[in-house]
Amino acid sequence: MAKTSLASGSGWHLEFGNITRPQGFCALATEAGIHGARLDMALIWSEEPAVISAMFTTNAAAAAPVAVTRQVAKAGRSQGIVVNSGNANAMTGQQGMNDAWAMQALVAEEMGVPASWVAVASTGVIGVPLPMDKIQKGIRRLGEMWRNGEKGDGQAASEAILTTDTVPKTLAAEIDLAGGPVRLGMMAKGSGMIHPDMATMLVFITTDVMVEKEELDELLHDAVDRSFHRLSVDGDQSTNDMVVVLANGMSRVGFAADSDRVRFREALRALTREGARMIARDGEGASHLLTVRVVGAVDEKDAVKKARAAVRSSLVKSAVYGQDPNWGRVIAAVGSVGYPFDPGRVSLTMNGMTLLVSGQPVPFDEGKARECMGEDEVVFIVDLADGNAEAEAFGCDLTERYVDINAHYRT
Amino acid sequence: MAKTSLASGSGWHLEFGNITRPQGFCALATEAGIHGARLDMALIWSEEPAVISAMFTTNAAAAAPVAVTRQVAKAGRSQGIVVNSGNANAMTGQQGMNDAWAMQALVAEEMGVPASWVAVASTGVIGVPLPMDKIQKGIRRLGEMWRNGEKGDGQAASEAILTTDTVPKTLAAEIDLAGGPVRLGMMAKGSGMIHPDMATMLVFITTDVMVEKEELDELLHDAVDRSFHRLSVDGDQSTNDMVVVLANGMSRVGFAADSDRVRFREALRALTREGARMIARDGEGASHLLTVRVVGAVDEKDAVKKARAAVRSSLVKSAVYGQDPNWGRVIAAVGSVGYPFDPGRVSLTMNGMTLLVSGQPVPFDEGKARECMGEDEVVFIVDLADGNAEAEAFGCDLTERYVDINAHYRT
Repeated sequence: MAKTSLASGSGWHLEFGNITRPQGFCALATEAGIHGARLDMALIWSEEPAVISAMFTTNAAAAAPVAVTRQVAKAGRSQGIVVNSGNANAMTGQQGMNDAWAMQALVAEEMGVPASWVAVASTGVIGVPLPMDKIQKGIRRLGEMWRNGEKGDGQAASEAILTTDTVPKTLAAEIDLAGGPVRLGMMAKGSGMIHPDMATMLVFITTDVMVEKEELDELLHDAVDRSFHRLSVDGDQSTNDMVVVLANGMSRVGFAADSDRVRFREALRALTREGARMIARDGEGASHLLTVRVVGAVDEKDAVKKARAAVRSSLVKSAVYGQDPNWGRVIAAVGSVGYPFDPGRVSLTMNGMTLLVSGQPVPFDEGKARECMGEDEVVFIVDLADGNAEAEAFGCDLTERYVDINAHYRT
Repeated sequence: MAKTSLASGSGWHLEFGNITRPQGFCALATEAGIHGARLDMALIWSEEPAVISAMFTTNAAAAAPVAVTRQVAKAGRSQGIVVNSGNANAMTGQQGMNDAWAMQALVAEEMGVPASWVAVASTGVIGVPLPMDKIQKGIRRLGEMWRNGEKGDGQAASEAILTTDTVPKTLAAEIDLAGGPVRLGMMAKGSGMIHPDMATMLVFITTDVMVEKEELDELLHDAVDRSFHRLSVDGDQSTNDMVVVLANGMSRVGFAADSDRVRFREALRALTREGARMIARDGEGASHLLTVRVVGAVDEKDAVKKARAAVRSSLVKSAVYGQDPNWGRVIAAVGSVGYPFDPGRVSLTMNGMTLLVSGQPVPFDEGKARECMGEDEVVFIVDLADGNAEAEAFGCDLTERYVDINAHYRT
């Protein structure tokens, strides 16, 4: 984030901050010992019950905490989320379900709410049962902290959910609605961070806006489709991915007019877009953020498919790593999916440099091209000249370090 | 191939050999200078016109030679194929089409056949016009060789089509039909061999069986669906891929009975399966052949999808490279596509070692697991216990060398 200024729009702006930015949310963290001597459990808690909306991995081998939190989100009400890192509680059979329910019940007991109000998330090793003694002690300690009036500044919690991420990922937003200001906060951990069994993208969003579940669901889907669904670190899908939003209404401000809805939607889109970019930038072993924008497409769905194929391509990713202006790979990746197009009409730019115009390669200075690929972010824009739809997708480069991390961690 | 014995079945067997094994095919090669001082042009030629059947990349940015050979295959008759390595003639606009047609016309002139009987294939750099002076000289020389009565032993031709492959890939088969023996020959170059612009899987198959185009088309599709369509080196699809078969009928033996058809089909399936495995084994930077077999699936299409997802997974590929018995990644990859399944019923073996039974991880000796992953081929068998369909897919491991080759080649 260092080099970019934070996005803003009419009546809203992003700001540095985290899930404690909206009113009434606290974020506690502790060392439960699941993961060595480091913060590895977090509790996001709202002073009042909140509306919950969530989206999950579509993986058939979805983990136990995904099944539990899916039920919570379906019922629609939650006061908080307990998260552990170090163990994904995935592929753990019936024992895993029992353990996830136990986590939920323990938090409910500590916090004095119905179990059905507690969301659960886990990330870490697959196929190993949760160390429930440690989990239980961790939850007891988090409950104690809460009873002692600790609120947490959000920083420790944002660290406790990490596995191989190199930096915590947090952001906030403020939106001026007709009735007054409301706020958004976010913390995330990366995907493709599989180390060697560590899976999972976890994204937790808080807000103090007053909103009904149905509308929150729609807003979340809209934003996630444009952000986390456009993200590929290594093309592998985790068993534990989830994006959860809690809206506690404690600003006492809701959507009075359509303009309020527009502002909130724009802010949520911008927040989640930056979240996806933060995760891509911190992809395992990554040295560049890779953005591909497909424009001039027949429809948005096709543009998404093509942009995703390009950021997922091992060849494009390797070329970006090596700062090799190897644009043929981008076109080949875009051409491998979705509607056919006429290669004779395609144009391409790379960080503003024109490489291909209407199917004709443009001679370029190799040294200059390499130099512009040295930037922190490499943006390819592919113009199909076929329609008016467009979409972007985010990824990162593929480095020897990625292979090293994922091949040799346990040796 | 060193360690495995060649497959055989009732009335057919694979054998070491190449495209010159069937009667009446010659295979010439020359150094045209497209690619430095090495063999870089080949001509496969049949003494008599042959029935041609072919399958091509579905990439929207398909190269000019793909467009030309598609027309030849559609018309159904061909006497031979001219191939160059070093330049893919892809993303080269109208000039590229003109050059591919010129290649076809030049060969036709040299060999005294209609241009529409000449198939064309190219592999190499994308986005650079063909050096037509060199191509022309190469074709003249190939024509001269032919007029001088040279036949070629198939070895030089199998080398001339390579780019970053480390070994030529050839194989043959003999099939006893009711009317007498017929033969198959194959030469191939690898996919994922993109170096840094070198794309393309090229497979050329010859046979002396007498067969109608319609039947040959069906046999080829059947075999390719089970072999090259099950192959993933890096998940990237080339602009130039093609599989071409020429059947010249010079054995004067056709299919007299259904048992003949069955034998030929089995032999062609075995030949192309080995071809796919040779390509996977020689994937860029690869140190292991990776085979994933999904059994107990609801239908074959779903089994194919799941097996392909697993051999394509960067995480699975990295684990195989690091000899890390990280089976959770295989299940996660299989779970990411196709029909949902019950993780509680899934079982998994790795080179015969049982790792998961009905969703329950089986304790295993880590050292022994690593050791069995040291074998040249790592085979995962995933049993979904959901139906009776099965499918296999082939890939290779992901190594630092892959990244190095694809990132740093031009620096």
